[in-house]
Amino acid sequence: MENQEKVNYIYGMHPVLEAINAGKNIDKVYLKSGLEGESFRQLLSLMQSKGIAFQFVPVQRLDRITKARHQGVIAQLPSIEYSSLEQAVEYASSNDGLILVLDGVSDVRNFGAIARSAECAGFKSIILPAKGSASITPDSIKTSAGALLRLNVCKVPNIRTALYYLKEREYTIVSASEKGSKLIYDVDFSKPVAIVMGDEHNGVSDSALKLSDEIAAIPMAGGIGSLNVSVASAIVMYEVVRQRRNA
Amino acid sequence: MENQEKVNYIYGMHPVLEAINAGKNIDKVYLKSGLEGESFRQLLSLMQSKGIAFQFVPVQRLDRITKARHQGVIAQLPSIEYSSLEQAVEYASSNDGLILVLDGVSDVRNFGAIARSAECAGFKSIILPAKGSASITPDSIKTSAGALLRLNVCKVPNIRTALYYLKEREYTIVSASEKGSKLIYDVDFSKPVAIVMGDEHNGVSDSALKLSDEIAAIPMAGGIGSLNVSVASAIVMYEVVRQRRNA
Repeated sequence: MENQEKVNYIYGMHPVLEAINAGKNIDKVYLKSGLEGESFRQLLSLMQSKGIAFQFVPVQRLDRITKARHQGVIAQLPSIEYSSLEQAVEYASSNDGLILVLDGVSDVRNFGAIARSAECAGFKSIILPAKGSASITPDSIKTSAGALLRLNVCKVPNIRTALYYLKEREYTIVSASEKGSKLIYDVDFSKPVAIVMGDEHNGVSDSALKLSDEIAAIPMAGGIGSLNVSVASAIVMYEVVRQRRNA
Repeated sequence: MENQEKVNYIYGMHPVLEAINAGKNIDKVYLKSGLEGESFRQLLSLMQSKGIAFQFVPVQRLDRITKARHQGVIAQLPSIEYSSLEQAVEYASSNDGLILVLDGVSDVRNFGAIARSAECAGFKSIILPAKGSASITPDSIKTSAGALLRLNVCKVPNIRTALYYLKEREYTIVSASEKGSKLIYDVDFSKPVAIVMGDEHNGVSDSALKLSDEIAAIPMAGGIGSLNVSVASAIVMYEVVRQRRNA
Protein backbone atom coordinates (compact mmCIF):
# COMPACT_ATOMS: atom_id res chain seq x y z
CA MET A 1 0.00 0.00 0.00
CA GLU A 2 2.71 2.39 0.95
CA ASN A 3 4.49 4.21 -1.76
CA GLN A 4 8.12 4.26 -0.78
CA GLU A 5 9.52 5.12 -4.20
CA LYS A 6 12.51 7.36 -4.17
CA VAL A 7 11.98 11.05 -4.57
CA ASN A 8 13.14 12.33 -7.96
CA TYR A 9 15.04 15.51 -8.63
CA ILE A 10 15.97 17.72 -11.57
CA TYR A 11 19.36 19.47 -11.27
CA GLY A 12 20.77 22.65 -12.73
CA MET A 13 19.44 26.07 -13.63
CA HIS A 14 18.34 25.41 -17.22
CA PRO A 15 16.86 21.94 -16.76
CA VAL A 16 14.78 23.33 -13.88
CA LEU A 17 13.67 26.39 -15.91
CA GLU A 18 12.71 24.09 -18.78
CA ALA A 19 10.81 21.72 -16.52
CA ILE A 20 8.78 24.59 -15.07
CA ASN A 21 8.08 26.05 -18.51
CA ALA A 22 6.99 22.62 -19.72
CA GLY A 23 4.40 22.58 -16.92
CA LYS A 24 6.06 19.69 -15.11
CA ASN A 25 4.68 18.98 -11.64
CA ILE A 26 7.22 20.24 -9.10
CA ASP A 27 7.04 19.80 -5.36
CA LYS A 28 9.66 22.33 -4.34
CA VAL A 29 12.80 24.01 -5.65
CA TYR A 30 15.88 24.17 -3.43
CA LEU A 31 18.13 27.13 -4.07
CA LYS A 32 21.65 27.74 -2.80
CA SER A 33 21.73 30.60 -0.30
CA GLY A 34 23.16 33.73 -1.92
CA LEU A 35 22.35 32.72 -5.50
CA GLU A 36 22.35 35.69 -7.91
CA GLY A 37 22.37 36.57 -11.61
CA GLU A 38 20.01 36.95 -14.58
CA SER A 39 18.92 33.28 -14.85
CA PHE A 40 18.26 33.22 -11.12
CA ARG A 41 16.01 36.28 -11.34
CA GLN A 42 14.21 34.69 -14.28
CA LEU A 43 13.73 31.46 -12.30
CA LEU A 44 12.50 33.38 -9.25
CA SER A 45 9.85 35.29 -11.16
CA LEU A 46 8.78 32.13 -12.99
CA MET A 47 8.38 30.24 -9.70
CA GLN A 48 6.43 33.12 -8.24
CA SER A 49 4.06 33.36 -11.19
CA LYS A 50 3.44 29.60 -11.17
CA GLY A 51 3.11 29.40 -7.39
CA ILE A 52 5.93 26.90 -7.01
CA ALA A 53 7.36 26.51 -3.53
CA PHE A 54 11.05 27.22 -3.10
CA GLN A 55 13.54 27.35 -0.28
CA PHE A 56 17.05 28.74 0.16
CA VAL A 57 19.37 26.20 1.78
CA PRO A 58 23.11 25.96 2.49
CA VAL A 59 25.03 24.52 -0.46
CA GLN A 60 25.95 21.49 1.68
CA ARG A 61 22.33 20.40 1.65
CA LEU A 62 22.25 20.49 -2.15
CA ASP A 63 25.51 18.54 -2.26
CA ARG A 64 23.92 15.85 -0.14
CA ILE A 65 21.07 15.46 -2.65
CA THR A 66 23.38 15.00 -5.64
CA LYS A 67 27.04 14.84 -6.49
CA ALA A 68 26.17 16.14 -9.97
CA ARG A 69 26.79 19.76 -11.00
CA HIS A 70 23.58 21.31 -9.67
CA GLN A 71 24.53 24.99 -10.10
CA GLY A 72 22.72 25.79 -6.85
CA VAL A 73 19.30 24.74 -8.18
CA ILE A 74 17.53 21.45 -7.49
CA ALA A 75 13.86 20.79 -8.19
CA GLN A 76 12.18 18.05 -6.20
CA LEU A 77 9.50 16.18 -8.12
CA PRO A 78 6.51 14.64 -6.38
CA SER A 79 6.92 10.90 -5.87
CA ILE A 80 3.30 10.50 -6.90
CA GLU A 81 1.47 12.34 -9.59
CA TYR A 82 -0.93 14.98 -8.39
CA SER A 83 -4.20 15.54 -10.20
CA SER A 84 -4.94 18.65 -12.18
CA LEU A 85 -7.69 20.90 -10.82
CA GLU A 86 -9.91 19.91 -13.73
CA GLN A 87 -9.42 16.19 -13.05
CA ALA A 88 -9.97 16.59 -9.31
CA VAL A 89 -13.23 18.51 -9.78
CA GLU A 90 -14.44 16.31 -12.63
CA TYR A 91 -13.94 13.16 -10.59
CA ALA A 92 -15.74 14.60 -7.56
CA SER A 93 -18.58 15.86 -9.75
CA SER A 94 -19.13 12.46 -11.33
CA ASN A 95 -19.45 11.01 -7.82
CA ASP A 96 -21.11 12.76 -4.87
CA GLY A 97 -19.74 16.24 -5.46
CA LEU A 98 -17.60 16.34 -2.32
CA ILE A 99 -14.33 18.26 -2.33
CA LEU A 100 -12.07 19.19 0.55
CA VAL A 101 -9.89 22.30 0.32
CA LEU A 102 -7.01 22.51 2.79
CA ASP A 103 -5.99 26.14 3.07
CA GLY A 104 -2.58 26.07 4.72
CA VAL A 105 -2.32 22.65 6.36
CA SER A 106 1.44 22.17 6.47
CA ASP A 107 1.83 19.37 8.99
CA VAL A 108 2.38 16.04 7.24
CA ARG A 109 0.66 14.00 9.95
CA ASN A 110 -2.40 16.23 9.97
CA PHE A 111 -2.52 16.05 6.17
CA GLY A 112 -2.41 12.25 6.24
CA ALA A 113 -4.96 12.00 9.05
CA ILE A 114 -7.35 14.34 7.21
CA ALA A 115 -6.99 12.34 3.99
CA ARG A 116 -7.88 9.17 5.87
CA SER A 117 -11.08 10.71 7.26
CA ALA A 118 -11.93 12.24 3.87
CA GLU A 119 -11.72 8.86 2.17
CA CYS A 120 -13.93 7.27 4.84
CA ALA A 121 -16.49 10.08 4.47
CA GLY A 122 -16.69 9.60 0.70
CA PHE A 123 -14.79 12.68 -0.38
CA LYS A 124 -12.98 12.13 -3.68
CA SER A 125 -10.67 15.09 -4.08
CA ILE A 126 -8.45 17.28 -1.96
CA ILE A 127 -7.24 20.64 -3.19
CA LEU A 128 -4.41 22.51 -1.51
CA PRO A 129 -2.19 25.45 -2.36
CA ALA A 130 1.25 24.53 -3.69
CA LYS A 131 3.03 26.92 -1.35
CA GLY A 132 3.33 25.97 2.28
CA SER A 133 1.18 22.84 2.14
CA ALA A 134 2.09 19.32 3.17
CA SER A 135 2.91 16.94 0.33
CA ILE A 136 2.26 13.35 -0.59
CA THR A 137 5.25 11.64 0.99
CA PRO A 138 5.83 8.17 2.40
CA ASP A 139 5.08 9.68 5.85
CA SER A 140 1.79 11.31 4.91
CA ILE A 141 0.72 8.20 2.97
CA LYS A 142 1.41 6.12 6.07
CA THR A 143 -0.59 8.42 8.37
CA SER A 144 -3.40 8.39 5.81
CA ALA A 145 -3.59 4.56 5.99
CA GLY A 146 -3.14 4.64 2.21
CA ALA A 147 -6.00 7.08 1.58
CA LEU A 148 -3.69 9.46 -0.26
CA LEU A 149 -3.25 6.80 -2.94
CA ARG A 150 -7.02 6.58 -3.44
CA LEU A 151 -7.86 10.26 -3.56
CA ASN A 152 -7.33 12.91 -6.20
CA VAL A 153 -4.92 15.34 -4.65
CA CYS A 154 -4.41 18.59 -6.49
CA LYS A 155 -1.94 21.35 -5.70
CA VAL A 156 -2.94 24.72 -7.07
CA PRO A 157 -0.77 27.83 -7.51
CA ASN A 158 -3.49 29.98 -6.04
CA ILE A 159 -6.35 29.05 -3.75
CA ARG A 160 -8.55 31.96 -4.89
CA THR A 161 -8.40 30.90 -8.54
CA ALA A 162 -9.33 27.38 -7.49
CA LEU A 163 -12.31 28.63 -5.50
CA TYR A 164 -13.51 30.73 -8.46
CA TYR A 165 -13.25 27.63 -10.63
CA LEU A 166 -15.26 25.62 -8.09
CA LYS A 167 -17.97 28.31 -8.01
CA GLU A 168 -18.14 28.21 -11.79
CA ARG A 169 -18.65 24.46 -11.57
CA GLU A 170 -21.52 25.20 -9.13
CA TYR A 171 -19.90 24.08 -5.92
CA THR A 172 -21.04 25.75 -2.72
CA ILE A 173 -17.97 26.95 -0.83
CA VAL A 174 -18.27 26.35 2.91
CA SER A 175 -15.42 27.46 5.14
CA ALA A 176 -15.13 26.11 8.65
CA SER A 177 -14.20 28.94 10.97
CA GLU A 178 -14.94 30.05 14.49
CA LYS A 179 -15.76 33.41 12.84
CA GLY A 180 -18.87 31.83 11.33
CA SER A 181 -22.20 33.25 12.44
CA LYS A 182 -23.95 29.92 12.00
CA LEU A 183 -23.14 26.37 13.05
CA ILE A 184 -22.24 23.59 10.64
CA TYR A 185 -25.53 21.93 11.57
CA ASP A 186 -27.45 24.82 10.04
CA VAL A 187 -25.70 24.76 6.66
CA ASP A 188 -27.34 22.91 3.75
CA PHE A 189 -24.85 20.37 2.42
CA SER A 190 -27.17 18.70 -0.07
CA LYS A 191 -25.61 20.29 -3.18
CA PRO A 192 -22.05 19.80 -4.50
CA VAL A 193 -19.86 21.31 -1.82
CA ALA A 194 -16.25 22.28 -1.26
CA ILE A 195 -15.36 22.33 2.45
CA VAL A 196 -12.51 24.71 3.23
CA MET A 197 -10.41 24.01 6.34
CA GLY A 198 -7.61 26.30 7.52
CA ASP A 199 -4.55 25.46 9.54
CA GLU A 200 -4.75 25.32 13.33
CA HIS A 201 -2.97 28.57 13.99
CA ASN A 202 -4.37 30.97 11.43
CA GLY A 203 -7.56 29.29 10.28
CA VAL A 204 -8.98 29.81 6.80
CA SER A 205 -7.32 32.75 5.02
CA ASP A 206 -9.24 35.98 4.59
CA SER A 207 -9.23 35.65 0.82
CA ALA A 208 -10.84 32.20 1.03
CA LEU A 209 -13.36 33.43 3.60
CA LYS A 210 -14.35 36.25 1.23
CA LEU A 211 -15.11 33.75 -1.53
CA SER A 212 -17.12 31.46 0.74
CA ASP A 213 -20.87 31.07 0.38
CA GLU A 214 -21.08 30.02 4.01
CA ILE A 215 -18.81 30.38 7.01
CA ALA A 216 -19.76 27.80 9.59
CA ALA A 217 -18.51 27.12 13.11
CA ILE A 218 -18.21 23.95 15.14
CA PRO A 219 -19.78 24.53 18.57
CA MET A 220 -17.29 24.69 21.44
CA ALA A 221 -17.93 23.85 25.05
CA GLY A 222 -15.25 23.77 27.74
CA GLY A 223 -12.24 25.97 28.18
CA ILE A 224 -9.78 25.04 25.44
CA GLY A 225 -11.92 26.17 22.57
CA SER A 226 -9.98 24.69 19.69
CA LEU A 227 -10.00 21.31 18.04
CA ASN A 228 -7.14 19.69 16.20
CA VAL A 229 -7.55 20.47 12.47
CA SER A 230 -7.77 16.80 11.58
CA VAL A 231 -10.58 16.27 14.10
CA ALA A 232 -12.36 19.46 13.00
CA SER A 233 -12.18 18.38 9.35
CA ALA A 234 -13.71 15.01 10.18
CA ILE A 235 -16.54 16.59 12.18
CA VAL A 236 -17.50 18.85 9.26
CA MET A 237 -17.16 16.12 6.62
CA TYR A 238 -19.30 13.75 8.67
CA GLU A 239 -21.97 16.41 9.11
CA VAL A 240 -22.18 16.37 5.30
CA VAL A 241 -22.46 12.55 5.40
CA ARG A 242 -25.20 12.73 8.06
CA GLN A 243 -27.30 15.30 6.20
CA ARG A 244 -27.10 13.41 2.92
CA ARG A 245 -28.06 10.09 4.56
CA ASN A 246 -31.03 11.65 6.31
CA ALA A 247 -32.20 13.46 3.17
CA MET B 1 -0.68 24.81 31.34
CA GLU B 2 1.58 21.84 30.94
CA ASN B 3 2.22 19.72 33.94
CA GLN B 4 5.86 18.76 33.75
CA GLU B 5 6.25 17.75 37.39
CA LYS B 6 8.54 14.85 38.03
CA VAL B 7 7.06 11.39 38.24
CA ASN B 8 7.05 10.01 41.79
CA TYR B 9 7.92 6.52 42.87
CA ILE B 10 7.57 4.28 45.92
CA TYR B 11 10.42 1.79 46.42
CA GLY B 12 10.65 -1.56 48.17
CA MET B 13 8.35 -4.53 48.70
CA HIS B 14 6.66 -3.45 51.92
CA PRO B 15 6.19 0.23 51.15
CA VAL B 16 4.56 -0.75 47.84
CA LEU B 17 2.32 -3.38 49.50
CA GLU B 18 1.29 -0.80 52.07
CA ALA B 19 0.59 1.85 49.45
CA ILE B 20 -1.66 -0.54 47.52
CA ASN B 21 -3.48 -1.63 50.68
CA ALA B 22 -3.98 2.01 51.63
CA GLY B 23 -5.76 2.53 48.29
CA LYS B 24 -3.07 4.85 46.96
CA ASN B 25 -3.39 5.67 43.27
CA ILE B 26 -0.68 3.76 41.41
CA ASP B 27 0.13 4.05 37.73
CA LYS B 28 2.21 0.93 37.33
CA VAL B 29 4.48 -1.34 39.36
CA TYR B 30 7.88 -2.34 37.96
CA LEU B 31 9.14 -5.72 39.11
CA LYS B 32 12.61 -7.19 38.73
CA SER B 33 12.61 -10.14 36.30
CA GLY B 34 12.86 -13.42 38.19
CA LEU B 35 11.47 -12.07 41.48
CA GLU B 36 10.18 -14.84 43.81
CA GLY B 37 9.10 -15.51 47.39
CA GLU B 38 6.09 -15.16 49.67
CA SER B 39 5.87 -11.34 49.70
CA PHE B 40 6.17 -11.31 45.94
CA ARG B 41 3.25 -13.74 45.57
CA GLN B 42 1.23 -11.62 47.99
CA LEU B 43 2.01 -8.48 45.98
CA LEU B 44 1.12 -10.22 42.72
CA SER B 45 -2.28 -11.35 43.90
CA LEU B 46 -2.96 -7.95 45.44
CA MET B 47 -2.13 -6.17 42.15
CA GLN B 48 -4.30 -8.59 40.24
CA SER B 49 -7.28 -8.13 42.53
CA LYS B 50 -6.96 -4.32 42.40
CA GLY B 51 -6.35 -4.25 38.64
CA ILE B 52 -3.01 -2.50 39.00
CA ALA B 53 -0.76 -2.64 35.95
CA PHE B 54 2.68 -4.18 36.43
CA GLN B 55 5.65 -5.03 34.30
CA PHE B 56 8.74 -7.21 34.72
CA VAL B 57 11.91 -5.39 33.72
CA PRO B 58 15.66 -6.06 33.95
CA VAL B 59 17.11 -4.97 37.28
CA GLN B 60 19.21 -2.34 35.44
CA ARG B 61 16.06 -0.44 34.61
CA LEU B 62 15.06 -0.33 38.29
CA ASP B 63 18.57 0.80 39.19
CA ARG B 64 18.21 3.69 36.75
CA ILE B 65 15.03 4.86 38.51
CA THR B 66 16.60 4.90 41.96
CA LYS B 67 19.89 4.28 43.69
CA ALA B 68 17.95 3.36 46.84
CA ARG B 69 17.42 -0.24 47.95
CA HIS B 70 14.35 -1.07 45.90
CA GLN B 71 14.24 -4.84 46.50
CA GLY B 72 13.11 -5.35 42.91
CA VAL B 73 9.83 -3.47 43.38
CA ILE B 74 9.10 0.11 42.32
CA ALA B 75 5.64 1.62 42.10
CA GLN B 76 5.18 4.59 39.79
CA LEU B 77 2.65 7.13 41.03
CA PRO B 78 0.59 9.22 38.65
CA SER B 79 1.97 12.74 38.31
CA ILE B 80 -1.59 13.98 38.55
CA GLU B 81 -4.34 12.67 40.74
CA TYR B 82 -6.98 10.63 38.97
CA SER B 83 -10.60 10.92 40.00
CA SER B 84 -12.51 8.13 41.67
CA LEU B 85 -15.33 6.57 39.65
CA GLU B 86 -17.85 8.13 42.02
CA GLN B 87 -16.32 11.61 41.57
CA ALA B 88 -16.11 11.25 37.79
CA VAL B 89 -19.75 10.19 37.46
CA GLU B 90 -21.00 12.70 40.02
CA TYR B 91 -19.31 15.58 38.22
CA ALA B 92 -20.66 14.52 34.83
CA SER B 93 -24.15 14.05 36.31
CA SER B 94 -24.19 17.50 37.81
CA ASN B 95 -23.37 18.91 34.36
CA ASP B 96 -24.70 17.51 31.06
CA GLY B 97 -24.37 13.82 31.84
CA LEU B 98 -21.66 13.14 29.27
CA ILE B 99 -19.04 10.49 29.97
CA LEU B 100 -16.48 8.95 27.66
CA VAL B 101 -15.23 5.42 28.29
CA LEU B 102 -12.01 4.43 26.52
CA ASP B 103 -11.87 0.68 26.38
CA GLY B 104 -8.27 -0.15 25.52
CA VAL B 105 -6.82 3.07 24.10
CA SER B 106 -3.13 2.62 24.86
CA ASP B 107 -1.52 5.18 22.57
CA VAL B 108 -0.59 8.32 24.50
CA ARG B 109 -1.11 10.65 21.52
CA ASN B 110 -4.54 9.23 20.76
CA PHE B 111 -5.46 9.54 24.43
CA GLY B 112 -4.42 13.18 24.48
CA ALA B 113 -6.14 13.97 21.18
CA ILE B 114 -9.38 12.33 22.37
CA ALA B 115 -9.28 14.26 25.64
CA ARG B 116 -8.92 17.51 23.69
CA SER B 117 -12.00 16.74 21.58
CA ALA B 118 -13.93 15.56 24.64
CA GLU B 119 -13.31 18.83 26.44
CA CYS B 120 -14.41 20.83 23.39
CA ALA B 121 -17.57 18.73 23.08
CA GLY B 122 -18.51 19.37 26.71
CA PHE B 123 -17.69 15.96 28.14
CA LYS B 124 -16.58 16.15 31.76
CA SER B 125 -15.23 12.72 32.60
CA ILE B 126 -13.17 10.00 30.97
CA ILE B 127 -13.13 6.47 32.35
CA LEU B 128 -10.53 3.93 31.30
CA PRO B 129 -9.32 0.57 32.54
CA ALA B 130 -6.15 0.67 34.65
CA LYS B 131 -4.52 -2.14 32.71
CA GLY B 132 -3.19 -1.38 29.25
CA SER B 133 -4.51 2.16 29.00
CA ALA B 134 -2.57 5.33 28.29
CA SER B 135 -1.86 7.53 31.32
CA ILE B 136 -1.82 11.20 32.16
CA THR B 137 1.77 12.08 31.36
CA PRO B 138 3.49 15.25 30.19
CA ASP B 139 3.18 13.87 26.62
CA SER B 140 -0.53 13.11 26.76
CA ILE B 141 -1.20 16.44 28.48
CA LYS B 142 0.63 18.21 25.67
CA THR B 143 -1.31 16.39 22.92
CA SER B 144 -4.52 17.18 24.79
CA ALA B 145 -3.74 20.92 24.67
CA GLY B 146 -4.18 20.86 28.44
CA ALA B 147 -7.62 19.21 28.35
CA LEU B 148 -6.42 16.40 30.62
CA LEU B 149 -5.96 18.96 33.38
CA ARG B 150 -9.57 20.09 33.03
CA LEU B 151 -11.29 16.72 32.85
CA ASN B 152 -12.03 14.10 35.47
CA VAL B 153 -9.98 11.11 34.43
CA CYS B 154 -10.71 7.89 36.24
CA LYS B 155 -8.85 4.60 35.96
CA VAL B 156 -10.93 1.60 37.00
CA PRO B 157 -9.73 -1.92 37.82
CA ASN B 158 -12.49 -3.40 35.72
CA ILE B 159 -14.44 -1.86 32.87
CA ARG B 160 -17.49 -4.12 33.39
CA THR B 161 -17.91 -3.03 37.01
CA ALA B 162 -17.69 0.59 35.87
CA LEU B 163 -20.37 0.04 33.22
CA TYR B 164 -22.67 -1.62 35.79
CA TYR B 165 -22.17 1.39 38.05
CA LEU B 166 -23.01 3.73 35.15
CA LYS B 167 -26.19 1.79 34.39
CA GLU B 168 -27.17 2.04 38.03
CA ARG B 169 -26.70 5.78 37.81
CA GLU B 170 -29.05 5.69 34.77
CA TYR B 171 -26.52 6.29 32.05
CA THR B 172 -27.28 4.85 28.63
CA ILE B 173 -24.23 2.89 27.44
CA VAL B 174 -23.53 3.45 23.74
CA SER B 175 -20.61 1.62 22.19
CA ALA B 176 -19.22 2.76 18.86
CA SER B 177 -18.50 -0.26 16.72
CA GLU B 178 -18.69 -1.26 13.10
CA LYS B 179 -20.63 -4.27 14.41
CA GLY B 180 -23.52 -1.95 15.25
CA SER B 181 -26.76 -2.57 13.39
CA LYS B 182 -27.71 1.09 13.52
CA LEU B 183 -25.87 4.31 12.76
CA ILE B 184 -24.87 6.85 15.39
CA TYR B 185 -27.37 9.24 13.79
CA ASP B 186 -30.22 6.93 14.77
CA VAL B 187 -29.33 6.68 18.45
CA ASP B 188 -31.08 8.95 20.95
CA PHE B 189 -28.41 10.86 22.89
CA SER B 190 -30.78 13.10 24.83
CA LYS B 191 -30.38 11.29 28.18
CA PRO B 192 -27.21 10.92 30.28
CA VAL B 193 -24.89 8.85 28.13
CA ALA B 194 -21.58 7.03 28.37
CA ILE B 195 -19.93 6.64 24.96
CA VAL B 196 -17.62 3.63 24.78
CA MET B 197 -14.78 3.72 22.25
CA GLY B 198 -12.41 0.80 21.65
CA ASP B 199 -8.87 0.79 20.42
CA GLU B 200 -8.17 0.89 16.69
CA HIS B 201 -7.14 -2.72 16.34
CA ASN B 202 -9.62 -4.66 18.46
CA GLY B 203 -12.48 -2.22 18.89
CA VAL B 204 -14.73 -2.26 21.96
CA SER B 205 -14.28 -5.47 23.99
CA ASP B 206 -16.98 -8.13 23.88
CA SER B 207 -17.73 -7.72 27.57
CA ALA B 208 -18.35 -3.98 27.11
CA LEU B 209 -20.47 -4.63 24.00
CA LYS B 210 -22.62 -7.05 25.99
CA LEU B 211 -23.34 -4.36 28.59
CA SER B 212 -24.17 -1.72 25.97
CA ASP B 213 -27.69 -0.43 25.51
CA GLU B 214 -26.81 0.53 21.94
CA ILE B 215 -24.07 -0.45 19.51
CA ALA B 216 -23.78 2.21 16.86
CA ALA B 217 -21.65 2.47 13.73
CA ILE B 218 -20.14 5.42 11.92
CA PRO B 219 -20.98 5.13 8.22
CA MET B 220 -18.03 4.30 5.97
CA ALA B 221 -17.61 5.16 2.32
CA GLY B 222 -14.47 4.50 0.33
CA GLY B 223 -12.08 1.62 0.51
CA ILE B 224 -10.14 2.02 3.75
CA GLY B 225 -13.06 1.51 6.04
CA SER B 226 -11.54 2.57 9.32
CA LEU B 227 -11.11 5.90 11.03
CA ASN B 228 -8.43 6.83 13.51
CA VAL B 229 -9.84 6.28 17.02
CA SER B 230 -9.37 9.93 17.94
CA VAL B 231 -11.32 11.03 14.87
CA ALA B 232 -14.02 8.41 15.45
CA SER B 233 -14.40 9.52 19.07
CA ALA B 234 -14.85 13.14 18.01
CA ILE B 235 -17.46 12.23 15.38
CA VAL B 236 -19.56 10.35 17.94
CA MET B 237 -19.18 12.99 20.66
CA TYR B 238 -20.16 15.75 18.25
CA GLU B 239 -23.23 13.79 17.16
CA VAL B 240 -24.27 14.00 20.82
CA VAL B 241 -23.60 17.75 20.74
CA ARG B 242 -25.63 18.17 17.54
CA GLN B 243 -28.65 16.24 18.81
CA ARG B 244 -28.75 18.12 22.09
CA ARG B 245 -28.48 21.51 20.38
CA ASN B 246 -31.26 20.65 17.96
CA ALA B 247 -33.50 19.27 20.72
